[in-house]
Amino acid sequence: MLRRIVIFNAFCVFFAASYIVVPGPAYPATKGEIWPKPQQETKEWTYYKLSPAVFKFTVKGKTCDILKAAIERYTSVLRTTHHIAWKHTKKTWKKVESRSTAADPDFKGALQELQINLLAPCEVYPHLEMNEKYSLKVSGISKLESDSIWGILRGMESFAQLFYMAKGYKDVLINATQIVDFPRYTYRGLLIDTSRHYITVANILKTLDAMEMNKMNVLHWHIVDDQSFPYQSEKFPQLSLQGAYDPSMVYTKTNIIQIVSYARDRGIRVLPEFDVPGHTRSWGVAYPSILTKCYQYGQVVGLGPMDPTNNVTYKLIGDLFREVQERFPDKYFHLGGDEVAMECWSSNPDLINFMSEHNMTKPSELHAYFMTKVIPLLGQKSKPIVWQEVFDEGVKLPSDTIVQVWKTVGAQDMIPILEAGHKVVYSSSWYLDKLDGGDGWSKFYTVDPRQQITTDVLDLNNIVGGEACMWGEVVDDTNLISRTWPRASAVAEILWRAPEPQYSLSSVMDITTRMEEQVCRMNHRGIQAQPPNGPGFCPIETL
Amino acid sequence: MLRRIVIFNAFCVFFAASYIVVPGPAYPATKGEIWPKPQQETKEWTYYKLSPAVFKFTVKGKTCDILKAAIERYTSVLRTTHHIAWKHTKKTWKKVESRSTAADPDFKGALQELQINLLAPCEVYPHLEMNEKYSLKVSGISKLESDSIWGILRGMESFAQLFYMAKGYKDVLINATQIVDFPRYTYRGLLIDTSRHYITVANILKTLDAMEMNKMNVLHWHIVDDQSFPYQSEKFPQLSLQGAYDPSMVYTKTNIIQIVSYARDRGIRVLPEFDVPGHTRSWGVAYPSILTKCYQYGQVVGLGPMDPTNNVTYKLIGDLFREVQERFPDKYFHLGGDEVAMECWSSNPDLINFMSEHNMTKPSELHAYFMTKVIPLLGQKSKPIVWQEVFDEGVKLPSDTIVQVWKTVGAQDMIPILEAGHKVVYSSSWYLDKLDGGDGWSKFYTVDPRQQITTDVLDLNNIVGGEACMWGEVVDDTNLISRTWPRASAVAEILWRAPEPQYSLSSVMDITTRMEEQVCRMNHRGIQAQPPNGPGFCPIETL
Repeated sequence: MLRRIVIFNAFCVFFAASYIVVPGPAYPATKGEIWPKPQQETKEWTYYKLSPAVFKFTVKGKTCDILKAAIERYTSVLRTTHHIAWKHTKKTWKKVESRSTAADPDFKGALQELQINLLAPCEVYPHLEMNEKYSLKVSGISKLESDSIWGILRGMESFAQLFYMAKGYKDVLINATQIVDFPRYTYRGLLIDTSRHYITVANILKTLDAMEMNKMNVLHWHIVDDQSFPYQSEKFPQLSLQGAYDPSMVYTKTNIIQIVSYARDRGIRVLPEFDVPGHTRSWGVAYPSILTKCYQYGQVVGLGPMDPTNNVTYKLIGDLFREVQERFPDKYFHLGGDEVAMECWSSNPDLINFMSEHNMTKPSELHAYFMTKVIPLLGQKSKPIVWQEVFDEGVKLPSDTIVQVWKTVGAQDMIPILEAGHKVVYSSSWYLDKLDGGDGWSKFYTVDPRQQITTDVLDLNNIVGGEACMWGEVVDDTNLISRTWPRASAVAEILWRAPEPQYSLSSVMDITTRMEEQVCRMNHRGIQAQPPNGPGFCPIETL
Repeated sequence: MLRRIVIFNAFCVFFAASYIVVPGPAYPATKGEIWPKPQQETKEWTYYKLSPAVFKFTVKGKTCDILKAAIERYTSVLRTTHHIAWKHTKKTWKKVESRSTAADPDFKGALQELQINLLAPCEVYPHLEMNEKYSLKVSGISKLESDSIWGILRGMESFAQLFYMAKGYKDVLINATQIVDFPRYTYRGLLIDTSRHYITVANILKTLDAMEMNKMNVLHWHIVDDQSFPYQSEKFPQLSLQGAYDPSMVYTKTNIIQIVSYARDRGIRVLPEFDVPGHTRSWGVAYPSILTKCYQYGQVVGLGPMDPTNNVTYKLIGDLFREVQERFPDKYFHLGGDEVAMECWSSNPDLINFMSEHNMTKPSELHAYFMTKVIPLLGQKSKPIVWQEVFDEGVKLPSDTIVQVWKTVGAQDMIPILEAGHKVVYSSSWYLDKLDGGDGWSKFYTVDPRQQITTDVLDLNNIVGGEACMWGEVVDDTNLISRTWPRASAVAEILWRAPEPQYSLSSVMDITTRMEEQVCRMNHRGIQAQPPNGPGFCPIETL
């Protein structure tokens, strides 16, 4: 019913509508193609067979706990792949045969090993300038090489994605392949919001699994907000005891250590956000005095943003942030700074007095005053990231502050920030919570942050990356994974791959069919990514 | 981030935006309120405590296997409810006390039993005219009475929904309540589509669980379509062997027996749809000769709808439908009939000849010719339901044919059908696959099919109900449940409850907060309904 011809693709200009329907999936999945697309890749016709009894990962260069864990993880991925394939083959395919016949000159026998050559010692944590470049050569003795553990991790994921199954054959195969690969952007993030709805630790870990499969490297954890305060503080236990939705809906120190360590093992940074001075209503359940009283007709009508004139506010922030810095080793700390309800500040007689005493004429100067006092509280341990309002309102920011742009699609908001010499993270096009135009992924795919800027006087390398934002208003454990994936995968590929000079029918088909495979691959690995391209199914050959 | 004030409700006209934020959920859940809203309900202050060791269901009137299964099912629901409550209480609530103190005059002790008084023998299967009326009186000895097993089932669900937990108290409570209840519409359906994506039997059963919780009574199973043919036929095994996405992605005879029986136990009809003559491309993988060859510039360019001039077509349809009628006991059979690609018929030289031989001037007459030959194939065993195109194109339909309207929101398409004396099922406003305006439920709530018709010359009782349609293009096992629920719950309530004369702030709050409870209740019973109203959580008191 409805839509006899289903074209879900924003690239649909390439497909002429027709009343001729072909049975089967709208777009067949590719087999053994990598998502996100590698920078350089050559595939040959010759191929090898995966035999878990034969194949092994071997370490030729440096090693460390991250590499050991990765070898264990990918050994398990390949075993499961092989197991699913065989189980299904036995169950439903009446006539299958092994492709490993001497008669086929392209067949080169069993894959022996992947030699992993890490050329430098492991770094302890991933970071903004992390090196993710790797080279991979698949042949009888395959080789993966990188100057960095992070490159090795990306290469192992690519390696795992090269396997496929040929229809009618029971073997898991991999073609001889050469890859040299590195990301276009160093910051490829996903925001999750655990204040509007609590997300279980299990689902945060699953999100990290999905991020690894898509080579994303920053989990931006918008941990608290107006609605609830699930961060459990040792210094200020009342914050979550009173401010969480329920005393059981919190992230303990142990939870955070687990999440940070799980992310690190996958080359993913965990960037904490404690949004101030707005979006802080839940802080005020336990500590009402740090919030501003909002007035109407001379009466207090509720509590608003943090009170920038109250020293207790800064004391609490400073003490709390030092604790948060202990738990989150990342070199950046997201201070928020967006959507401050200045109407409340302007309504408060004490703040009006304060402004006039300090020669301030508009409440945005209070915002500047506040941020100027908060940023130094981070000390040397971390550098600030802020939402664009903080820059827009003229706060003097340290030059190494990153500004995250979310308000306007396109170049407009980025230009002044770049002109001021700041690094930019771009999010405006990638608000995953917005379903206004349906919930496809292709509209996310057509945006490349740097390509939006046409002037060449700016240093476009200062656009360090972008972020898909999965705000939590209508997302909880029931739909987080299926709504995030594969829409975030589109952002992941755009931020990794070399830009397409111009979309053609074949490049669009390449993207669409690889996306189909990537979703099936995520499904096979236990991530409930939703269907990307209309009618279809995950064939067993998509491993 | 974004939306400091979140109003997700289409009724939002009642809520003035403000910059004052209150921490916690956007809308708190009610406690022990029923969804869909009963026709008449009186609650008292006095209350009882649920003690699984004490409480029992007792049968006072007739009984049958459906009732026995229901008692088993709801015994388990109440036990689980009680268990969850106690487990959670022990774990996270530091200070709890039993509310069962002699000091509280409203407390009337433990709930003893629910006496179930079924006044007439059970019917074998639910049907269009099924009687779902019941009366329920909760007190020490509670009573549920109905003339029909279907009314008893509805009453048991209402009974289970009356339980709640008071914050700070560890007991599961129920207030003394009197209910007289019956549905406004006799047909309250949900369409699922298993052709665009295969849905596992487990998820179809879960869908039936959710339908029971929302008192929906028709599962419209759009089982096959262009993309795949998952119905496994004994007479024509090649249909699914070749036409299913994969030989494993089929519904066997055993599967269908299980689904129909599971549905019957819950008072839900299973209405099979085999859409003809369009949407049949997958039939043609095994039987290409029953489809029309489409021509362009004198060349065959593909296959289109069924060939209405081919006797083999009717033979196959007749034989297959007889088998389907054996498996699906419902008294109705959905023949589809929508969106026929007549351009293909008009392009085929043989069909052009046939038309001229039969004095037909337009291809819609071929459609009429086709349907006129197919409808009698149902014989006496089932009556037809068709999509509105069949009526719109002037096919002479038996008077007992039901016409399903989907094309135009509002009265326009229903009027001529009602004038012709047919029964109508309305779906136009309830296409759950459309996310154009986001994915809230409130836009579905504001439509009452009969209220759209203002003329009083028509028999509005002929609008027998409505159907929420979850087309499967972008829905598979990963997101079927969370995308269907609670959006279908809105349709379920509108089709059950007495119409609201005018929405007021209090009625909107009643609906919104009951919806919040209903979603939490579904979550607690293992159905991953997504969050309905913005930020929030499921408190343990919502059982």
